[in-house]
Amino acid sequence: MELKNMDKIVNVCKARGFVFPGSEIYGGFANTWDFGPVGVELKNNIKRAWWKRFVQEDANTYGVDAAILMNPTVWKASGHVDSFGDPKMDCKNCKTRHRADTLIENHSKGTVSAEAMTNEEMEKYIEEHDVRCPVCGKRDFTPIRKFNPMFTTSRGTLEAEADTVYLRPETCQGEYVNFLNVQRTARAKVPFAIAQIGKSFRNEITPGNFLFRTIEFEQMELQKFCKAEDSMNFYEDYKVRAKQFVEDLGLKDEHLRFHDHDKLAHYAKAACDIQYLFPIGWQELNGIHHRGTWDLSRHQEFSGKSMLYLDPVTNEKFLPTVIEYSIGADRLTLALLCEAYDEETLEGGDTRVVMHLHSAIAPYKVAVLPLQKNLSDKAKEVFAILSKQFMCDYDEAGSIGKRYRREDEIGTPFCVTIDFDTLEDDTVTIRDRDTMQQIRLKISELCPYIQSKISF
Amino acid sequence: MELKNMDKIVNVCKARGFVFPGSEIYGGFANTWDFGPVGVELKNNIKRAWWKRFVQEDANTYGVDAAILMNPTVWKASGHVDSFGDPKMDCKNCKTRHRADTLIENHSKGTVSAEAMTNEEMEKYIEEHDVRCPVCGKRDFTPIRKFNPMFTTSRGTLEAEADTVYLRPETCQGEYVNFLNVQRTARAKVPFAIAQIGKSFRNEITPGNFLFRTIEFEQMELQKFCKAEDSMNFYEDYKVRAKQFVEDLGLKDEHLRFHDHDKLAHYAKAACDIQYLFPIGWQELNGIHHRGTWDLSRHQEFSGKSMLYLDPVTNEKFLPTVIEYSIGADRLTLALLCEAYDEETLEGGDTRVVMHLHSAIAPYKVAVLPLQKNLSDKAKEVFAILSKQFMCDYDEAGSIGKRYRREDEIGTPFCVTIDFDTLEDDTVTIRDRDTMQQIRLKISELCPYIQSKISF
Repeated sequence: MELKNMDKIVNVCKARGFVFPGSEIYGGFANTWDFGPVGVELKNNIKRAWWKRFVQEDANTYGVDAAILMNPTVWKASGHVDSFGDPKMDCKNCKTRHRADTLIENHSKGTVSAEAMTNEEMEKYIEEHDVRCPVCGKRDFTPIRKFNPMFTTSRGTLEAEADTVYLRPETCQGEYVNFLNVQRTARAKVPFAIAQIGKSFRNEITPGNFLFRTIEFEQMELQKFCKAEDSMNFYEDYKVRAKQFVEDLGLKDEHLRFHDHDKLAHYAKAACDIQYLFPIGWQELNGIHHRGTWDLSRHQEFSGKSMLYLDPVTNEKFLPTVIEYSIGADRLTLALLCEAYDEETLEGGDTRVVMHLHSAIAPYKVAVLPLQKNLSDKAKEVFAILSKQFMCDYDEAGSIGKRYRREDEIGTPFCVTIDFDTLEDDTVTIRDRDTMQQIRLKISELCPYIQSKISF
Repeated sequence: MELKNMDKIVNVCKARGFVFPGSEIYGGFANTWDFGPVGVELKNNIKRAWWKRFVQEDANTYGVDAAILMNPTVWKASGHVDSFGDPKMDCKNCKTRHRADTLIENHSKGTVSAEAMTNEEMEKYIEEHDVRCPVCGKRDFTPIRKFNPMFTTSRGTLEAEADTVYLRPETCQGEYVNFLNVQRTARAKVPFAIAQIGKSFRNEITPGNFLFRTIEFEQMELQKFCKAEDSMNFYEDYKVRAKQFVEDLGLKDEHLRFHDHDKLAHYAKAACDIQYLFPIGWQELNGIHHRGTWDLSRHQEFSGKSMLYLDPVTNEKFLPTVIEYSIGADRLTLALLCEAYDEETLEGGDTRVVMHLHSAIAPYKVAVLPLQKNLSDKAKEVFAILSKQFMCDYDEAGSIGKRYRREDEIGTPFCVTIDFDTLEDDTVTIRDRDTMQQIRLKISELCPYIQSKISF
């Protein structure tokens, strides 16, 4: 396949209001991005599609929305305070910091995975292959050290009682600490899942590749609590469902692959990613992890609260095994933009840029376009009707051809044109983004017509 | 009116899965709360209703979703680094910290507002009225000092370049710094608004009164950019629209009042709150503020980027004036729960607790209840149909009466009961939460029936 150019994606995002650099008027703020008017709708639609598929349509999955700031003991129990961290080296020459594994993977153009290497092996590889600092070009690194990417802050109101608080580096602890609460109030029976969409924070130093790696990012994930003997079935099940979900949203099978982890955490029985062929190469899109009983047993130990589940049928008491399925909302947004972006050569030689986004996640479902300014009263009537049900754009500036092109670039599946016949007979032209075909409909037929085309 | 007991609200929230104390298994984490399976749906529905009303249905309002971590200069420009802060006093006896204005307002049971008092006036009031420490009962305070409630963290990856970064204490700066980006990409014409829903953080030390005051909270707000001469009209307009919105969601007129600020910021022309009669008394629910050209002029000064808007008709260049409308999603959730909570005495003397939530924001639109366990296959079929369109609960445990009561407590507007006739003729009983009336419908009629009852 032809790799799409990331720069083109970034440019259309900035030009059309999908994504702006964070704090741009102040020169930006590294690895942060702000979603603009079009991007916020796209991302919200993606989050809604995920929630619909994995929470709404699944009677055994329960949502939560836990606080970002948690009791610091949570991160001791999870292991993040003591052993979370990436292998970092400083360039002594230009004083920049780098991830050793990323240096190796970039140097080898993705052919070598440093995932299973020890620090010594990585240092040796860097020396033997003359891997250099990407900033200054020298090879003059410090030894590898662990750098904890958790952001810290302080809750203390009096200095004396100040204590370190962490910005959560992952959302899943919000499900584990609420395992008992959810099970009790929902009267949930194992197997069941707890799901959450929310922001996490990591002090990333690696260049982010646009939305791919950011210091704050939104995770969509769920933890399935099950019996040990059923766990591998659920693991396989979520692999299938995770892939189906992103395919249904528009990612092509040939741009997706499973990647089993080379190295497993000591408690894990299995772990894999689904990778997507981004413009920067094959990269992790989401993960499915068999976490054993690690998480609940750690919280049981650190909180002193029993996490045992009493099976109402067998009367057996056990710690449920956890299967985790996690996908980044920002990363998926980027993948869907990359997949949807197209440059088509039209008859006559013109090029149109079009985002072939699934209509369920397209920022606007429909644009209302009066052919001339003196039709804007009627157009606003139509906007008022449609906007009760759908996110609609409204545009009366410029030629109709240019307005169609703008809507194509932001992925609007339907354009409704108001013309002089509309004043006579209440009919409008509705144009399809992908086929560019136009049909004539009654205004009263618009809502059901559009509704029938945007389901997910 | 009879004040509802906050404890009752908190208890039903914990018991039914609306809201749990944050990090509860670790003894909690002060002024944080986690939304449970029912609460996350309620809050999301409230956010969606706000976005629909103020963004989707308004062709001149554009959404954004800005990063929480912003370039630190943003908070210098906004004034938060230098002059943001609450008047705090420490109790020398028990070493607790308090807001002086809150001490006065609580001591006077809300009859005295400390809003316009100087520090000296507050200290004098506390002495003359013998206001005591609510923790230890002594009156032995330090003088008032400013305490900046911004949480700080560090982005620095090398110690040498470590710099202070703030967790945003308000979302609106995300709109101001994106004023140029949004105006340009949406080709927006003044007057237009930029809206955002997102989390903000404040290191609050005052007891929070459940969801009323939390250290992280979600704001729903918009900034209207307009000409100075139109600004008071928009100010009045948003007062009306803000009140209409919360009334449409179910807050009663007699529990709402406008409260003009006693003291205005030096740049402000007008400012008011809408207060709601919470169980803790009249308290701010949302604010409408005339901010003049303060925000854009400060960002122009600190960023060096011109924020002038060129009027395409008059060719006039000017800094737009800003009207801000802001409402807390958590606070509104609390108000709606308080308003909806009811204890009804039934014929025969039984009491039922019912949440009369507007069906558009009710966590579940419908519950599917098989009358007996051997009807669960059919019930699951019905669940599969309904859950394609609505958040549905599914419950097959316990007597049908108890299941109805549970759904009443979480505000489910409709319960669908599957019985043996369902197997014969594909009809079900659908029960209305508020009237408890039941009617018989075809399964195929359920979706349109429910859809027609839940619009907002």
